[in-house]
Amino acid sequence: MASKHYKDPKLKVFALSSNEPLAAKIAEAVGVDLGEITLSQFADGEIRVNIEESTRGAHVYIVQSTSFPVNDHLMELLITIDALRRASAKTINIVMPYYGYARQDRKAQSREPITAKLVANMLENAGADRVVALDLHAAQIQGFFDIPVDHLLGAPLLANYFIDNNLVGEEVVVVSPDHGGVTRARKLAEFLKAPIAIVDKRRPRPNVAEVMNIVGEVDGKTAVIIDDMIDTAGTITIAAQALVDRGAKDVYATCTHPVLSGIAMERLQKSVIKKVVITDSIALPEEKHIDKIEIVSVAQLIGEAIKRIHENRSVSPLFNETFTVID
Amino acid sequence: MASKHYKDPKLKVFALSSNEPLAAKIAEAVGVDLGEITLSQFADGEIRVNIEESTRGAHVYIVQSTSFPVNDHLMELLITIDALRRASAKTINIVMPYYGYARQDRKAQSREPITAKLVANMLENAGADRVVALDLHAAQIQGFFDIPVDHLLGAPLLANYFIDNNLVGEEVVVVSPDHGGVTRARKLAEFLKAPIAIVDKRRPRPNVAEVMNIVGEVDGKTAVIIDDMIDTAGTITIAAQALVDRGAKDVYATCTHPVLSGIAMERLQKSVIKKVVITDSIALPEEKHIDKIEIVSVAQLIGEAIKRIHENRSVSPLFNETFTVID
Amino acid sequence: MASKHYKDPKLKVFALSSNEPLAAKIAEAVGVDLGEITLSQFADGEIRVNIEESTRGAHVYIVQSTSFPVNDHLMELLITIDALRRASAKTINIVMPYYGYARQDRKAQSREPITAKLVANMLENAGADRVVALDLHAAQIQGFFDIPVDHLLGAPLLANYFIDNNLVGEEVVVVSPDHGGVTRARKLAEFLKAPIAIVDKRRPRPNVAEVMNIVGEVDGKTAVIIDDMIDTAGTITIAAQALVDRGAKDVYATCTHPVLSGIAMERLQKSVIKKVVITDSIALPEEKHIDKIEIVSVAQLIGEAIKRIHENRSVSPLFNETFTVID
Amino acid sequence: MASKHYKDPKLKVFALSSNEPLAAKIAEAVGVDLGEITLSQFADGEIRVNIEESTRGAHVYIVQSTSFPVNDHLMELLITIDALRRASAKTINIVMPYYGYARQDRKAQSREPITAKLVANMLENAGADRVVALDLHAAQIQGFFDIPVDHLLGAPLLANYFIDNNLVGEEVVVVSPDHGGVTRARKLAEFLKAPIAIVDKRRPRPNVAEVMNIVGEVDGKTAVIIDDMIDTAGTITIAAQALVDRGAKDVYATCTHPVLSGIAMERLQKSVIKKVVITDSIALPEEKHIDKIEIVSVAQLIGEAIKRIHENRSVSPLFNETFTVID
Amino acid sequence: MASKHYKDPKLKVFALSSNEPLAAKIAEAVGVDLGEITLSQFADGEIRVNIEESTRGAHVYIVQSTSFPVNDHLMELLITIDALRRASAKTINIVMPYYGYARQDRKAQSREPITAKLVANMLENAGADRVVALDLHAAQIQGFFDIPVDHLLGAPLLANYFIDNNLVGEEVVVVSPDHGGVTRARKLAEFLKAPIAIVDKRRPRPNVAEVMNIVGEVDGKTAVIIDDMIDTAGTITIAAQALVDRGAKDVYATCTHPVLSGIAMERLQKSVIKKVVITDSIALPEEKHIDKIEIVSVAQLIGEAIKRIHENRSVSPLFNETFTVID
Amino acid sequence: MASKHYKDPKLKVFALSSNEPLAAKIAEAVGVDLGEITLSQFADGEIRVNIEESTRGAHVYIVQSTSFPVNDHLMELLITIDALRRASAKTINIVMPYYGYARQDRKAQSREPITAKLVANMLENAGADRVVALDLHAAQIQGFFDIPVDHLLGAPLLANYFIDNNLVGEEVVVVSPDHGGVTRARKLAEFLKAPIAIVDKRRPRPNVAEVMNIVGEVDGKTAVIIDDMIDTAGTITIAAQALVDRGAKDVYATCTHPVLSGIAMERLQKSVIKKVVITDSIALPEEKHIDKIEIVSVAQLIGEAIKRIHENRSVSPLFNETFTVID
Repeated sequence: MASKHYKDPKLKVFALSSNEPLAAKIAEAVGVDLGEITLSQFADGEIRVNIEESTRGAHVYIVQSTSFPVNDHLMELLITIDALRRASAKTINIVMPYYGYARQDRKAQSREPITAKLVANMLENAGADRVVALDLHAAQIQGFFDIPVDHLLGAPLLANYFIDNNLVGEEVVVVSPDHGGVTRARKLAEFLKAPIAIVDKRRPRPNVAEVMNIVGEVDGKTAVIIDDMIDTAGTITIAAQALVDRGAKDVYATCTHPVLSGIAMERLQKSVIKKVVITDSIALPEEKHIDKIEIVSVAQLIGEAIKRIHENRSVSPLFNETFTVID
Repeated sequence: MASKHYKDPKLKVFALSSNEPLAAKIAEAVGVDLGEITLSQFADGEIRVNIEESTRGAHVYIVQSTSFPVNDHLMELLITIDALRRASAKTINIVMPYYGYARQDRKAQSREPITAKLVANMLENAGADRVVALDLHAAQIQGFFDIPVDHLLGAPLLANYFIDNNLVGEEVVVVSPDHGGVTRARKLAEFLKAPIAIVDKRRPRPNVAEVMNIVGEVDGKTAVIIDDMIDTAGTITIAAQALVDRGAKDVYATCTHPVLSGIAMERLQKSVIKKVVITDSIALPEEKHIDKIEIVSVAQLIGEAIKRIHENRSVSPLFNETFTVID
Repeated sequence: MASKHYKDPKLKVFALSSNEPLAAKIAEAVGVDLGEITLSQFADGEIRVNIEESTRGAHVYIVQSTSFPVNDHLMELLITIDALRRASAKTINIVMPYYGYARQDRKAQSREPITAKLVANMLENAGADRVVALDLHAAQIQGFFDIPVDHLLGAPLLANYFIDNNLVGEEVVVVSPDHGGVTRARKLAEFLKAPIAIVDKRRPRPNVAEVMNIVGEVDGKTAVIIDDMIDTAGTITIAAQALVDRGAKDVYATCTHPVLSGIAMERLQKSVIKKVVITDSIALPEEKHIDKIEIVSVAQLIGEAIKRIHENRSVSPLFNETFTVID
Repeated sequence: MASKHYKDPKLKVFALSSNEPLAAKIAEAVGVDLGEITLSQFADGEIRVNIEESTRGAHVYIVQSTSFPVNDHLMELLITIDALRRASAKTINIVMPYYGYARQDRKAQSREPITAKLVANMLENAGADRVVALDLHAAQIQGFFDIPVDHLLGAPLLANYFIDNNLVGEEVVVVSPDHGGVTRARKLAEFLKAPIAIVDKRRPRPNVAEVMNIVGEVDGKTAVIIDDMIDTAGTITIAAQALVDRGAKDVYATCTHPVLSGIAMERLQKSVIKKVVITDSIALPEEKHIDKIEIVSVAQLIGEAIKRIHENRSVSPLFNETFTVID
Repeated sequence: MASKHYKDPKLKVFALSSNEPLAAKIAEAVGVDLGEITLSQFADGEIRVNIEESTRGAHVYIVQSTSFPVNDHLMELLITIDALRRASAKTINIVMPYYGYARQDRKAQSREPITAKLVANMLENAGADRVVALDLHAAQIQGFFDIPVDHLLGAPLLANYFIDNNLVGEEVVVVSPDHGGVTRARKLAEFLKAPIAIVDKRRPRPNVAEVMNIVGEVDGKTAVIIDDMIDTAGTITIAAQALVDRGAKDVYATCTHPVLSGIAMERLQKSVIKKVVITDSIALPEEKHIDKIEIVSVAQLIGEAIKRIHENRSVSPLFNETFTVID
Repeated sequence: MASKHYKDPKLKVFALSSNEPLAAKIAEAVGVDLGEITLSQFADGEIRVNIEESTRGAHVYIVQSTSFPVNDHLMELLITIDALRRASAKTINIVMPYYGYARQDRKAQSREPITAKLVANMLENAGADRVVALDLHAAQIQGFFDIPVDHLLGAPLLANYFIDNNLVGEEVVVVSPDHGGVTRARKLAEFLKAPIAIVDKRRPRPNVAEVMNIVGEVDGKTAVIIDDMIDTAGTITIAAQALVDRGAKDVYATCTHPVLSGIAMERLQKSVIKKVVITDSIALPEEKHIDKIEIVSVAQLIGEAIKRIHENRSVSPLFNETFTVID
């Protein structure tokens, strides 16, 4: 266990309201107490932020996932940045285990916004000096910022789960649930020394039903479907069924960000999926802690990153290998 | 009635989701159909904005009050601005009948944010070219922007109600419910040719109860309490009672912005206030349409302002006199 | 007395030409010598600034009130900021005991500038990192800046004068000379544990002379009129007369900023006002040091603020209580 | 053929030095003469730009691919933007058929630049008002800009070639040469009503040679490998060989951007690839016009986009369908 | 004479207080009435700007020389820009016949400001869209701006005076009063087809008096000393004496900007200089209209420039030739 | 000799590809090893920058002259700045011994760019915190930046050469090769206690050949022609011939920046010039190291400047005197 009492009192970690359990663990990993801050809403829904301790000259790390309710969490974050800037914090570092609106990262159709860029601009203009992010939906979102972005990867942590459970080798197949996720599947497959497959949804001719084709060998194998996030769980549960239909022995699903909105829990519960391996980048409400779900914590990873950033030590070791903190 | 078919198709008015009835009336006052836009939320709460018609080269007016739920309405506004900027709108004009977070306009305590400025920065940085506002909580908020702000006043419209109901002259007294609102009360009093009074809450000695003192003559008079907004209605209903206790005959309350959150309706209903005269700057849900409430519409005022702005005619006549549209 | 020789040579205080006596006292309070700087004007009126010592890596505090001649003082300040930025100062902190143009803080009429915002933008763009201000005309001016503003309050210092002279309690009444200053009067009244009154200028009907009405009890009391600044002293001397006419025993006037332009001194001299209690936020020329005037220095307050800012200690204790420096 | 003499003399098209043949065709498609500009280099390599006709108030479209030599072409573009801004052009629209440095769009390793964002910032800061781009390496690059980006797609034009040559249906397979390009392959496959396959390079165990695996059916089919650009042609020629080894009948390669640097031509010439279908987004020097290469022009597409942009007509029809200009 | 009634009512010319006679002539040259604006100072010296007519959508040209008192004139200009921006002017064009602080255009010593750049930044940030300048002290000041600068030259107008008085050819010598002005002298010399000479102040050895050396032939010639401005007239009158001492027959002095501060008039009056030929870029007070001074007006030149700018016609003809307006 | 092992490991010096020998000497003068960085170009000419050591929290000095090939060197510099900013360098200091595009510092003709300003903007926007420059073509280029520019002067170093070779006093004449360089010549002349002369190219009448006139005494003297740079050497070799024709005994040429492009070497070799004294601000390729050329190194000067900047000591001593490092 990390010993408390980090050496430099100028390093402060504040938890906003989206994911206090993770923030508490991160603070523990760093070796500090969480900074005192009161977050509330006025009767009319306006957010009120009261920073209860001096931050003059401090290097502040704010932990906030912009998960549901995304707009409230984002606004709380921006207001806190504004307050810290006016309160003479020396640097304001935003730790976003989950970056909401990341999927709106390009114009897929006419007159669409690029909300992920809007959010980046808002954070920079409010006064953020740095962003620490985890598995951004697209790596290019780093380039939406002109401030430094430390981009941590959850894949090694997820991989550890499967390695620990001996789900490795040629009897396993890592599956991308869509065309855009093949690179991510290939990366996990390398950790697991396994082959890959792809779900290729395709409509052969107009007015003909969509076919859920599987490219690659899955028959008799344990399939691990990987995505960066599971939102309504529609794609992933259908893919799981298709894999079983093609002869997969067992199906696991894994992702970094458990958005799990709407009927996601119901779908997962009813699905053929054996286990859903997720991280705690988004706080999971008590009622969603079902048996199928296994949670891997990113607190040690983020805590180590904060310490390295604060001490001007390289963060890159955290990107390239299976991360293990040895104290 | 304003005739439809405004001459210039390049002027477009879009309604966002906070106050569609007002936006519809404004569009009618301008003489255009509301632009087509689809507003929705994904399962995880992220806002989706689809502008359904070309806005290239258009002068777009977006009508949005950042009322409850303020963060969703604000984010919807910002995303729409982003979409319009990327969709090559020529100018993006923000019509905010109600400007949320306006009360957070200064640091009253250490380490407070100035959220009203944060919002101004966000609007400008997203790409807004102009703001049309109504009765900003503090006039200085105009200076939070470097783009033009056309600041309309609701007082003349509210005054009309009292003039029409013959509530004028020395038998009326206009009352400020707190120390900061005396200028506003004096302005309405001038329309009504009435004297003023002030509610002076004061704690004479420590550990002694707050005294609700009234400065000025109210005995036997019809009191009109004016504020820029009524939020939880606590201050105003207590003030009303104090006025009756000091001999006021009847008490009216009036404000531009009916925030009316939490137990406001219950308080107003139970109070000694006879009528609450408000505008439609914030959409009032059906269940709040109680008998005590009288609504004055700002649609003609705003519609006329939009036309004058678009035609490069002076908007100042709308600021200085009791506004009357004669068609 | 504060001991000289502040521990950190990187803290430097420079006096510009508006208020060198105050700057000297502030430097003494901080415990440093004033930095060497030569300020002059060329024959054609252009300002010349020569910083006579190295400021590389220094935390520089520039003391300048933008009082008369406001444009020269403002330009001198901006040029000094530019010189310091190019001379590699680490932080440039602007100490403005008086912020000129503060009254132009909103558009009161069509096509008016908001010069207080223009000035804020100019300071930020020139390279200021922080502003230390005193009793801004409107607290919202803090929000004109995106850099930190430490806003000190003169009221406790002025209150001390009256407390020291036993002008407290129910026999005293604190008077706001206009509708906008009631909050300020209430704040001083709390220090003095006194009631308030308001001067309510009003024109009952068109073509009828303005009536100088007093709201609140003043008969037999010692009235203390408070404003944030006294400029031409017209309003305050007329108000004083009206108070005497309504039976006030004695009338004091007090303000933070003694602008005292034009015929102000003559008016004050001739007026019924017994004492005018001011601060040294604006340097008073010798000929204005008349007997009626009592000066309270803000040097200790500002000096303490500078030390706290430099040491990253909270400045908030200076905002909330009657300020007393105990060394 | 498009008739000359576009109606509005304020629309001007300038060709910089990277791709004059395409620019000339685009100008013809728009119906204007190319604007007069002299581009040269001083003896020391500094670029000299002389705009030889007045551009005051003009809407200028600059056609420049930042292809080899990329830094010279980029600098030429930036200098021209600077000159146009100072020469009072009304809008400056950058037409970049090929966007150099697009592959440096994220930090793949520690301390990497994101040059594609740097370039976007440079264009915006120099004064560009709009970018018209074609098949950006990642769609997220649109979000690197805050100005409007009109993103045209070359896929429909390339698809036309195969449709015209009857290379459609189940006997064809569209192949992605790597994990990241599957979405692009799926899109072309839809136009051709064909299935897809993926080249899955994989190293089964450490110290074992990389295996060039093919996922999907290719035996007996005509394979069309698609990428956004062909640079050194290493990947694509090896993939082609692997496809033939797995039984593919014929192999075509296609891409929007023929970078074709270093030994690319030699590799293509020697390869099993039958035809290489490219666009003229990058000018192909005479010596690279080998028989295997088929060029599809994007001039009509871009010309039509410019006209629509200038006339404030929607550009979206050009994105969504197989583009055909009918005059 | 230019006929009144310029065709486009959207073009407006406003005179600020530095040089109203010139502004009036410029307006006449353009064919418009001066816009209505009230300029005044409050008792405390703060500038008050009231724009008395609507400027919505107008292209406004503000005529202001930042001559003595430079800070007041500069601030008046900035405040007017702020007011116009907030009053929705379409473009704000600054006509500065004289650009104050231009000599502070580089760091000649440590810790000097570059005030000419500070002024440029202030104008741009306040909202200026364009600057029309005349004979900037250094041509590089154009580059201090990122907005277009139309830089007019007074030399041809000054040359006309000498040509009209037959002061041309080898009997004339154009003299630069210092090392930095040789290029300017050479340019005038070309108009007059005359040779040049230079005043070379030099101290041969330490502790030896400065020698006023003349480089070039002046004996028996009519010398014309040219500078961009005459400030205290010290350099130019000493140079004139030195020229006479070396045998010059007659000495003329000429400059674009008659700053003429301090004892300049006395020096000129007493000097050997026969005539001082200046422009009206700076308003000359009545008492300085001595016989020796000849004034050439720049009003036609500037008026023509404004018309060309407004009509998007090239301004370059005004730069390159002896300017003559023929109507 | 400077001892290695500079005390602060946070000071890092990186050499880019333009002038590695100078960078190595500078690093030695500072007492550090050059930082590890790999610079390369992809096959298509795109620049690749790999910073091979952590720069978190470091004060980085990048040494790069933007000499031939200027666009590649500039882009390499910008990409490195981008990488360092994203890699959390604390300050990024640009050491540019030679600033390319400096001659494009104003609009000499219509529709010209001001490329020197464009470059300044690009450096600032990319993230540079400071520029250390040497003999900028125009001192006003300092004002193109809003970040600090430390402007070092090469003249004292060049002067040392002549002093060491006893080329001083009245038998020497320092010659400006054109009208704009007289101030530079006068400065060197002061070091050498010598008089000056000017080359005055002039066309007496149209259609008559240009006359190469010499103003000042050169007969029997040793002439030293000084310019800031020698590019194609046309002007300087013609001037040298003219000086010999007027009786000069020997002719030396000297400049800070040996651009020496095109046929410069051939011209210098064939010319009457005895020695060409230059600095190593631009790396001279081996084949240009002819006997006539003498190189004075600026490494000690720049190294000393870097140390002083890093230690917050005044750099001004380096500007004002003949620079000598005594260790």
